[in-house]
Amino acid sequence: MSENLRNEIAAKKNMNPPMGWNSWDCYGAAVDEETVRKNADFMAEHLKEYGWEYIVVDIQWYEPFATSNEYHPFADLCVDEYSRVIPAENRFPSSKGGKGFGPLAEYVHSLGLKFGIHIMRGIPRTAVHQNLKIKNSTKTARDVAKTNSICYWNQDMYGVNPDNEGAREYYESIFELYASWGVDFIKCDDICRELPHEESEMILLSECLKNCGRDMILSLSPGPALLEKAELYKQTANMWRITDDFWDDWKLLYNMFERAEKWSIHTGFMHWPDADMLPIGAIRQCYDENNRTKFTKDEIRTMMSLWCMMRSPLMIGGELTKMDEFDMSVLQNRELFDMFKNIRHSHQVFRKEIDGNEVVAWIGTANNGNDYIGLFNLSDKDISLSVPLSEFEIFEPVKGTEIWTENSIRYDLSIVDNIPAHGSRVYKISIWE
Amino acid sequence: MSENLRNEIAAKKNMNPPMGWNSWDCYGAAVDEETVRKNADFMAEHLKEYGWEYIVVDIQWYEPFATSNEYHPFADLCVDEYSRVIPAENRFPSSKGGKGFGPLAEYVHSLGLKFGIHIMRGIPRTAVHQNLKIKNSTKTARDVAKTNSICYWNQDMYGVNPDNEGAREYYESIFELYASWGVDFIKCDDICRELPHEESEMILLSECLKNCGRDMILSLSPGPALLEKAELYKQTANMWRITDDFWDDWKLLYNMFERAEKWSIHTGFMHWPDADMLPIGAIRQCYDENNRTKFTKDEIRTMMSLWCMMRSPLMIGGELTKMDEFDMSVLQNRELFDMFKNIRHSHQVFRKEIDGNEVVAWIGTANNGNDYIGLFNLSDKDISLSVPLSEFEIFEPVKGTEIWTENSIRYDLSIVDNIPAHGSRVYKISIWE
Amino acid sequence: MSENLRNEIAAKKNMNPPMGWNSWDCYGAAVDEETVRKNADFMAEHLKEYGWEYIVVDIQWYEPFATSNEYHPFADLCVDEYSRVIPAENRFPSSKGGKGFGPLAEYVHSLGLKFGIHIMRGIPRTAVHQNLKIKNSTKTARDVAKTNSICYWNQDMYGVNPDNEGAREYYESIFELYASWGVDFIKCDDICRELPHEESEMILLSECLKNCGRDMILSLSPGPALLEKAELYKQTANMWRITDDFWDDWKLLYNMFERAEKWSIHTGFMHWPDADMLPIGAIRQCYDENNRTKFTKDEIRTMMSLWCMMRSPLMIGGELTKMDEFDMSVLQNRELFDMFKNIRHSHQVFRKEIDGNEVVAWIGTANNGNDYIGLFNLSDKDISLSVPLSEFEIFEPVKGTEIWTENSIRYDLSIVDNIPAHGSRVYKISIWE
Amino acid sequence: MSENLRNEIAAKKNMNPPMGWNSWDCYGAAVDEETVRKNADFMAEHLKEYGWEYIVVDIQWYEPFATSNEYHPFADLCVDEYSRVIPAENRFPSSKGGKGFGPLAEYVHSLGLKFGIHIMRGIPRTAVHQNLKIKNSTKTARDVAKTNSICYWNQDMYGVNPDNEGAREYYESIFELYASWGVDFIKCDDICRELPHEESEMILLSECLKNCGRDMILSLSPGPALLEKAELYKQTANMWRITDDFWDDWKLLYNMFERAEKWSIHTGFMHWPDADMLPIGAIRQCYDENNRTKFTKDEIRTMMSLWCMMRSPLMIGGELTKMDEFDMSVLQNRELFDMFKNIRHSHQVFRKEIDGNEVVAWIGTANNGNDYIGLFNLSDKDISLSVPLSEFEIFEPVKGTEIWTENSIRYDLSIVDNIPAHGSRVYKISIWE
Repeated sequence: MSENLRNEIAAKKNMNPPMGWNSWDCYGAAVDEETVRKNADFMAEHLKEYGWEYIVVDIQWYEPFATSNEYHPFADLCVDEYSRVIPAENRFPSSKGGKGFGPLAEYVHSLGLKFGIHIMRGIPRTAVHQNLKIKNSTKTARDVAKTNSICYWNQDMYGVNPDNEGAREYYESIFELYASWGVDFIKCDDICRELPHEESEMILLSECLKNCGRDMILSLSPGPALLEKAELYKQTANMWRITDDFWDDWKLLYNMFERAEKWSIHTGFMHWPDADMLPIGAIRQCYDENNRTKFTKDEIRTMMSLWCMMRSPLMIGGELTKMDEFDMSVLQNRELFDMFKNIRHSHQVFRKEIDGNEVVAWIGTANNGNDYIGLFNLSDKDISLSVPLSEFEIFEPVKGTEIWTENSIRYDLSIVDNIPAHGSRVYKISIWE
Repeated sequence: MSENLRNEIAAKKNMNPPMGWNSWDCYGAAVDEETVRKNADFMAEHLKEYGWEYIVVDIQWYEPFATSNEYHPFADLCVDEYSRVIPAENRFPSSKGGKGFGPLAEYVHSLGLKFGIHIMRGIPRTAVHQNLKIKNSTKTARDVAKTNSICYWNQDMYGVNPDNEGAREYYESIFELYASWGVDFIKCDDICRELPHEESEMILLSECLKNCGRDMILSLSPGPALLEKAELYKQTANMWRITDDFWDDWKLLYNMFERAEKWSIHTGFMHWPDADMLPIGAIRQCYDENNRTKFTKDEIRTMMSLWCMMRSPLMIGGELTKMDEFDMSVLQNRELFDMFKNIRHSHQVFRKEIDGNEVVAWIGTANNGNDYIGLFNLSDKDISLSVPLSEFEIFEPVKGTEIWTENSIRYDLSIVDNIPAHGSRVYKISIWE
Repeated sequence: MSENLRNEIAAKKNMNPPMGWNSWDCYGAAVDEETVRKNADFMAEHLKEYGWEYIVVDIQWYEPFATSNEYHPFADLCVDEYSRVIPAENRFPSSKGGKGFGPLAEYVHSLGLKFGIHIMRGIPRTAVHQNLKIKNSTKTARDVAKTNSICYWNQDMYGVNPDNEGAREYYESIFELYASWGVDFIKCDDICRELPHEESEMILLSECLKNCGRDMILSLSPGPALLEKAELYKQTANMWRITDDFWDDWKLLYNMFERAEKWSIHTGFMHWPDADMLPIGAIRQCYDENNRTKFTKDEIRTMMSLWCMMRSPLMIGGELTKMDEFDMSVLQNRELFDMFKNIRHSHQVFRKEIDGNEVVAWIGTANNGNDYIGLFNLSDKDISLSVPLSEFEIFEPVKGTEIWTENSIRYDLSIVDNIPAHGSRVYKISIWE
Repeated sequence: MSENLRNEIAAKKNMNPPMGWNSWDCYGAAVDEETVRKNADFMAEHLKEYGWEYIVVDIQWYEPFATSNEYHPFADLCVDEYSRVIPAENRFPSSKGGKGFGPLAEYVHSLGLKFGIHIMRGIPRTAVHQNLKIKNSTKTARDVAKTNSICYWNQDMYGVNPDNEGAREYYESIFELYASWGVDFIKCDDICRELPHEESEMILLSECLKNCGRDMILSLSPGPALLEKAELYKQTANMWRITDDFWDDWKLLYNMFERAEKWSIHTGFMHWPDADMLPIGAIRQCYDENNRTKFTKDEIRTMMSLWCMMRSPLMIGGELTKMDEFDMSVLQNRELFDMFKNIRHSHQVFRKEIDGNEVVAWIGTANNGNDYIGLFNLSDKDISLSVPLSEFEIFEPVKGTEIWTENSIRYDLSIVDNIPAHGSRVYKISIWE
């Protein structure tokens, strides 16, 4: 085997689901450059060593007057002569002089991190109405716009009709631009659940991204993705949302277990079902700087346990500089992220009532000879339970560690433990010989 | 009873379903003033005395470069300062100087006829993107546009969000304008089948029209209308389309029988289910001046029989000056239009196989002591049949006339007749005492 | 025209929807001969002259131990050697000696009335399990039974598989038997709403009945019938139920208006949509002899107005000998039944809110030069209203009578009246010249 | 840990999905004792050592005149005084004298094998119509029968209404009987896909079986099972059919891949989604003794590969004494069944076009440090392919064996192989260090 091949393989081996920070949960449509830099600095200093590496600017960085998460109908977006959105200079000063996100990406890279941006499927309405040009094409924005394909929750774009001349050139031109800026991660919105009617636009977009000359992760939003299209997502994107927006609400977390169960078998090399951002710490700061997540500590642990066992990408939603001690203990849990990177073939084992309480169990294996078992207490009260190891097809005594309590454990026939309401336990086990 | 009341009632008595000419079937989106005047002249001279009276300019009279029935995405429509479409002066020269359709309406009125126009639900995209004003409101076009309510087959308009301030003022302002021009008939498109999601916009539009100070017929398009909303259409509009566009194709005509059956009970005072335009004579002239209807003479008779028995509005689709002798004999059939104006309570009596052929029967009564019976041969071959009068709950011998053959008829127990393939017979009968 | 023909036609002219009495609402599955005779006597003496003529014995007359409306699973039904149910002799003593319903039918006929019975679709399970013979066939009950076609609310029968040899002979044999008894009316249950899966059995049954040599009305039960099968019911049966069982509950009566609207156009010669029995007077006597209808007088009038305007068959559900003065005034209302027999083309005109109250209007014409207008107050309070005559396309003053109040009326422009909660008005009108 | 516990665990460790022979594919409803014994003898001699151990008598062993797979409507089944079916003595002579399947089960046990029978949900119709007793209850067959719950493809039984008194006693009594015979395996038919309407009967039946005092595998038929009821099946039964009957038809085998993918995560301790019997060798002998499977050798291998990787129970459908050399090589493939018993967490990895051919990949792990990879060529032609190991998240060179060709393999970056049309490869691999 050649040196190159060995290196390539080694690189692949580290291609875990992305871990990073995204501006949406905290800043909505109104994030600015200073905030991005501040969070990047914090990540580099405190989180990078645990695996966190992406800094992602979410929606409407091209809207000069964006505030919180309200959109202004028919806002005058910043676009270049080729119908492409560019950063609003009042919010991203380093983009002045036509530099786009180049300087900001460069800064993030200088910290040893990666840089991502959000885009909407389609072409800006403002470009269509000004009838701007498309790069490398004689066609114009009006020629490629799909006139009645419009996102119902945001009015910035028209869809692009893949059958029209100029459509491919448009998508090529935007990824060429993003590559020139040094973008590593594209979160494309208004596309994931829009199948089958926008399927060919998704495929065109994916092809143009793959051929743009720079490796970028493609993340599709919003969910719920369509389960019957799983193979298509796997071939088209790196991650795709399996729910609508996830927030700090137990009902949404409860609901994620059913989705996680169904999508578990579709996790694999460079493609991951995405359970959405982690609303942890200080979120919704664009409304009130006193806002913090409504999740309890046990719910935070349950969320992290499920996301990590199912190998969902992990994108922190809270302002990093405002994390408290508990938050940091979660974001710096080495055992947890060690499992996250090494676990394979994970899936739900059962979901059933035990003594009148709803309990979910997961299992996964790891190359290092360990198995991981997760037990989730979905009921509203603390419980004590005993679960036979045979339910996991384990027929020998085991030893190991519980990740949240850090307790050493030894079980011969059954796992016996207490789990708080909405809480979870994750056991790293090996045969006790 | 006062003189005024008597006059009002007398006027109502003449309020039959509209009979007229519409430019769509022949000229698509590209009709011009000269053509309209020519057809009005012809109607006044040859058809008015049979009941024909409306001259209707169909879609895109505000698009300077419209051709046939293709639409130009994001075309620069003619609009006034208040976001209202106005006639393209190159196509309607008399509209110059801000006169709109005033001069053309005046001309049509001078011939003793009535004048109608087509509109699309909503507000022009071009007004939204220029962010034009709305009359009598501080709000602008951007404020009232419903950003993702867009007709899928025409890109001219955004829907108007009835919940937004300025929406009512916008609709009031357009009907004020049409009233000032002297418009008698509004065919509003992209609305009839768009229930329930655009229901409140339909109701707002109807209210504004009713309150504008001028009587105008409101016609809703395109179909199929929703049967379960029949009472709403009756209270909101004067006519509503029960199918998608109707053309000169036997399958569409065959299909109309089922729709006519279901909608028959919803015909009444000033509200009529609409089976769409009559593709008779020279149609599709915008493509080729040799085009004529593909319907056979018997199919034309069947169409006219059904439309007249069900009391659908009658809008001629062909160029009037190119009607041939047969066409004129149909359009000038006094007995037919006499039935059309007087028939009441008409409905399907049966639809069944008789000797292996599919036959439909209708009946209606008239104030003048007559009944009308229609027999339709939906099979592909000529048939002879005998239908007991008892099937119509008639238990005495009858006499009368068959409208198309003009034969005198006398039947004691059964109607016995021959009907050609796709043909029909309409009997005007009274008890033969 | 021959004398015979004239007579035949004259007979047809009197073929109105059946009016009669049915044992179900009062006696459930447990009616006996004495009760039937008592009601027949009463009808002959007090109701016949108003048009009432049918006496119908409802379900399970072949079950010796039937009580009220509970069914005994796998009861040992009375059957003859040919797999046909026969009357239980303990309940119908005159049937002894193999005479079946012959003597009872003869008695009813002697009073100038007609006799009807209820049957279930299919062949008795007891005959199948004893494997009895089928008349005029070498096949047996087991051969024709459709093994998994079983009524879910009564366990007496298997369906008959029309594709099997012996099926036609079975149905021929039962109608031969009923004809020999002198039966005039068959109410066939477990069939009307069982389309399309039991459609071919319905058609076979209808053919065998039509060819049995005696005219019998065929009534299909239970509803709701399928609107899209209207033409099939018209060709197969004389009446078919448009709802599930109707009882003395305002919600059910309210609900009937929507059904009546949809079915109105399917009324015609010898075929009538059936709104089910009239729960008037003393009903549910099999449970408690103090039971009476829960309908108010106004609700009774509303029911009778709707049934008569829509021309539903009229089957009294209450014990005739216990009718009170009000009941008798309804059952002997000459104007009402005169309308019932003469009204044609009746249909709903509108259903809308008037001053916040829900009002339904119907219209129908009559050969005698009259029109009938019905107004129904579906709201829960008394109302005063004014309804323009033009809504009925009447443009001249009218005079006439209101059927329930017996008031003379004269209206020039509008009908102006008071209607009690859940009440109705039915106007017989003619032009006031 | 006590000795007992250790033994119990050791026993559990061997509880793999059942492997055995079932009479249906070859003998339909007409298998007899001699045939059963002959197949048991053969299994004990030639197959037992490879893991095969169940001998299952399929449907209608209580029908004296059963032939092939046609059912006789209302056949007089053999029943005991307590409404329970018992073997037809003419077909199973050892059952004479009320011994039931006791002697036959004993014989099978004497060979070191296990004995299973097929039952239908419910209670025999013949018992209901004779109104036989229910053991330990004052209720009778008529009391517990659910009168309209009848299997549409077989007429032997009524469902049992779990809400009725006597229902539980009936189900307890049948499992008491089967336990007394020494039955090890119950295949219950007309139940698996009959959810949710027969769900409570399924649960009752399962409870009675679990409490009967003898361990018996519960197998539910026919499919397709309902995916949304997966947790219920897992708690109720040991195996459940995921398709309708599976036969030797490529379309059915092709179709199984989609089902296998969806059900893969529901395999676990003592519960297995069941892909149905293996139509291998001489099948359909009840029609013609020359009949053999229509599957090609490659299709047989593909079937076995999929069933074994997904851990479906394995039930041979062909007559064992007529297996040819190829058949025996499959049934005696040690590597294959070694994988079958040891593989865990297996699931589909991808299904996609490779060079225009449809390819499916599966992976599973094993306790012994091996992984298994399956590649399936679903296209109609032989293919050569190269699949990167990274697609399986393997980033190091591997070595091992291909199970069907028995080739030793070594791959560094990609699996490179040829696969015949409809064929498969199953690689047992470990890291090549």
